[in-house]
Amino acid sequence: MDMSRARGTRERLVVIGGDAAGMSAASQARRLKGQDELEIVAFERGHFTSYSACGIPYWVGGDVSAPEELIARTPEEHRARDIDLRMRTEVVELDVAGGRVRARDVDSGAESWTSYDKLVIGTGARPIRPDMPGVDAPGVHGVQTLDDGQALLDSLARTRGRRAVVVGAGYIGVEMAEAFVNRGYDVTVVNRGKEPMSTLDPDMGRLVHKAMEGLGITMVNDAHVTELRTGDDGRVRAVVTEDAEYPADVVVLGIGVRPETTLAKAAGLPVGQHDGLLTDMAMRVRGHENIWAGGDCVEVLDLVSGQERHIALGTHANKHGQVIGTNAGGGYATFPGVVGTAVSKVCDLEIARTGLREKDAHRAGLQYEAVTIESTSRAGYYPEASLMTVKMLAERRTGRLLGVQIVGREGAAKRVDIAAVALTARMTVEQMTALDLGYAPPFSPVWDPVLVAARKATAKVQASGR
Amino acid sequence: MDMSRARGTRERLVVIGGDAAGMSAASQARRLKGQDELEIVAFERGHFTSYSACGIPYWVGGDVSAPEELIARTPEEHRARDIDLRMRTEVVELDVAGGRVRARDVDSGAESWTSYDKLVIGTGARPIRPDMPGVDAPGVHGVQTLDDGQALLDSLARTRGRRAVVVGAGYIGVEMAEAFVNRGYDVTVVNRGKEPMSTLDPDMGRLVHKAMEGLGITMVNDAHVTELRTGDDGRVRAVVTEDAEYPADVVVLGIGVRPETTLAKAAGLPVGQHDGLLTDMAMRVRGHENIWAGGDCVEVLDLVSGQERHIALGTHANKHGQVIGTNAGGGYATFPGVVGTAVSKVCDLEIARTGLREKDAHRAGLQYEAVTIESTSRAGYYPEASLMTVKMLAERRTGRLLGVQIVGREGAAKRVDIAAVALTARMTVEQMTALDLGYAPPFSPVWDPVLVAARKATAKVQASGR
Repeated sequence: MDMSRARGTRERLVVIGGDAAGMSAASQARRLKGQDELEIVAFERGHFTSYSACGIPYWVGGDVSAPEELIARTPEEHRARDIDLRMRTEVVELDVAGGRVRARDVDSGAESWTSYDKLVIGTGARPIRPDMPGVDAPGVHGVQTLDDGQALLDSLARTRGRRAVVVGAGYIGVEMAEAFVNRGYDVTVVNRGKEPMSTLDPDMGRLVHKAMEGLGITMVNDAHVTELRTGDDGRVRAVVTEDAEYPADVVVLGIGVRPETTLAKAAGLPVGQHDGLLTDMAMRVRGHENIWAGGDCVEVLDLVSGQERHIALGTHANKHGQVIGTNAGGGYATFPGVVGTAVSKVCDLEIARTGLREKDAHRAGLQYEAVTIESTSRAGYYPEASLMTVKMLAERRTGRLLGVQIVGREGAAKRVDIAAVALTARMTVEQMTALDLGYAPPFSPVWDPVLVAARKATAKVQASGR
Repeated sequence: MDMSRARGTRERLVVIGGDAAGMSAASQARRLKGQDELEIVAFERGHFTSYSACGIPYWVGGDVSAPEELIARTPEEHRARDIDLRMRTEVVELDVAGGRVRARDVDSGAESWTSYDKLVIGTGARPIRPDMPGVDAPGVHGVQTLDDGQALLDSLARTRGRRAVVVGAGYIGVEMAEAFVNRGYDVTVVNRGKEPMSTLDPDMGRLVHKAMEGLGITMVNDAHVTELRTGDDGRVRAVVTEDAEYPADVVVLGIGVRPETTLAKAAGLPVGQHDGLLTDMAMRVRGHENIWAGGDCVEVLDLVSGQERHIALGTHANKHGQVIGTNAGGGYATFPGVVGTAVSKVCDLEIARTGLREKDAHRAGLQYEAVTIESTSRAGYYPEASLMTVKMLAERRTGRLLGVQIVGREGAAKRVDIAAVALTARMTVEQMTALDLGYAPPFSPVWDPVLVAARKATAKVQASGR
């Protein structure tokens, strides 16, 4: 069946993927153009729309009581805004030359073609699942979708054991470690890298490592998982590495994600080094006037290194959707790129980074000076002032800020925003020393920790000469 | 007696004022030049050096247990770094032509001249004390110096009554209101303006007003104090306004401060519209090669309005001192100016501002669009997400950010730093919408409240056309 039909002058916008990027784009396009000018059809293969995948660890940990709370907008709410949303419907083929997509009803298997004038691709990312024995056994979980979260919680409810092993020590890994600590589990995190949080330099990751141990989490680094061992009942029983075996009643995989671009690649759309779609400033797929892409399925320009990266993060997906919707709706907006900001926490330990790590700078051909300082979140004499460590990288000679990493307690994470804005503005660390940041004893020492780091970085850049 | 003497090639740096600006300058100059190259003599008329006056309300409120905690560096510590510090010694005359200062021992009255090659003026500010009956009565206090703080605490210990009236509703006023709330007092704040916190626009001050009332503080606005009425024992008993009378067992004056430039003006040094010393970028007093000034006694350039302002704030004083000490020590540093950032709190209400208020923009000849939004400190579903209100001003047509005001709970105040950096970089509100700020559910909604405001401001600038 071909759903294309004569539509007069009314254009049709088709959206593939009903989460942040796709539905933000649809909503914004609808704000700019009414139903009489623009028909909007959106396909989502799952059960939910517009939800916060980032919130799943907090749902599992008990801070959020129900999955509904993670849903920003339901299918019904989207439909009420004149978006023709087809749930449980997967787009299985994209015909760029013909300007149409083939969609399949997940439950019935029925298929049909839908033509488009404008297309938005928001297919997201898929978790990396290592090819090893036991990876599909009961008790082994991902936490990528709400369905994943529900499956994990159901599994926990059915299981008596209290030993959780998390494979991977990135954002998802440490957040899931916290979730299990909050549920009273014995938690082991098995990590391939030298230290947890490989998005930080290892010396900063080391601080996270120590803090996690202080929380009673067993942190295993430099570990290659070879097998997820199952018991007689077929359920996972242990995580096996080259060196040891860690008993597990439940295993969560948090090894990262890859852009979901199977469909787009089959259609001949351009992807980059990280397998993500390549777009222009207006979030149009390169070389295609009427196809946009955003969210976890695209690569973004890192404004500091000048290279493309893949970053799966809800805040980017929402911005992309906003930009795409504006352009697809006849307006004009751009997404200039990212500086690589990310924040997280494990219980009361806050972790933040923006810009380049040492190895990123090296890879980008940038020479740098690095400094690390320790300071406090409030005036030292003010109650609950807590230590934080700030690492700062500045370009050799020019002194341009290249990156900041912060590990500390309350007030540490969002301080990285200062550096995120400074990176965007291409400030030097010396310019940063004069920044007029908020000061009062409950909020900061007279020299904010970020300024202390900037002062030290300035001195080091000057001392290093040319 | 003339303390000038043959000193060979060794230069002498004289510092007037032993608090943040003066002693930071002295310390930094000493770091760059040893005792054999540079002699440093510093005069302080009080009992303390390098202390945090901003911490006094928290000492009075009980969050800080002793005044010693507010002292960053004692006279002994300064002397151990080869700074010839003369305590309880007031400089009473500055002879610019002769390159010398006349100092008086406060206790003995003995005077002497000291010559200088380089001079640093860090004479600070003095509180405004209105000329009205009763202003000098026992029970009426300022909170400008550690001595003031101690006098207030002694007075509270001697007094049985529990009614405190704070005159003035700026930073000091609201912080002292909190201090008295923490001590279990009935607190009344009597304020001349329409709303408390006149450093905010009245619509934002109104939010502070309501929150203070929620804390049980009686907030009286639009009130002109005419008298501080005393009892038979001479002690203050009530604050009298044109309309009413407020019983008081203790009164704190927090009406603001003025630059302390009596000495400098008598010596013919240039002051500006706000009676503060005028300096160049290197913090040298204009027209004087070898005299620097910093801290509460100078005016600073507001980078947003292009006009001079007087801002008494420890963080600026420390930066000034650092710049002055670097230059006086033979290095090179500048203080480009401020954007007017300030943060404060009343109990759990956080208050922040940076850049221009509506009336500042008007005064600076800038036309603007203003927007106000409400959002949350964390993802809406995350525990303890709290509401915050963000007001943003953008220049008409260009969309350049002009100012931000934030009132909210935890996480509201330091968010203003995002805007402080954006103002420094002269970003437009549209550029801000793409800022890569830290996002994770415990720290921010996917659109940080500052970005929500930037989006709304962008739309309003666009809609207003040319």
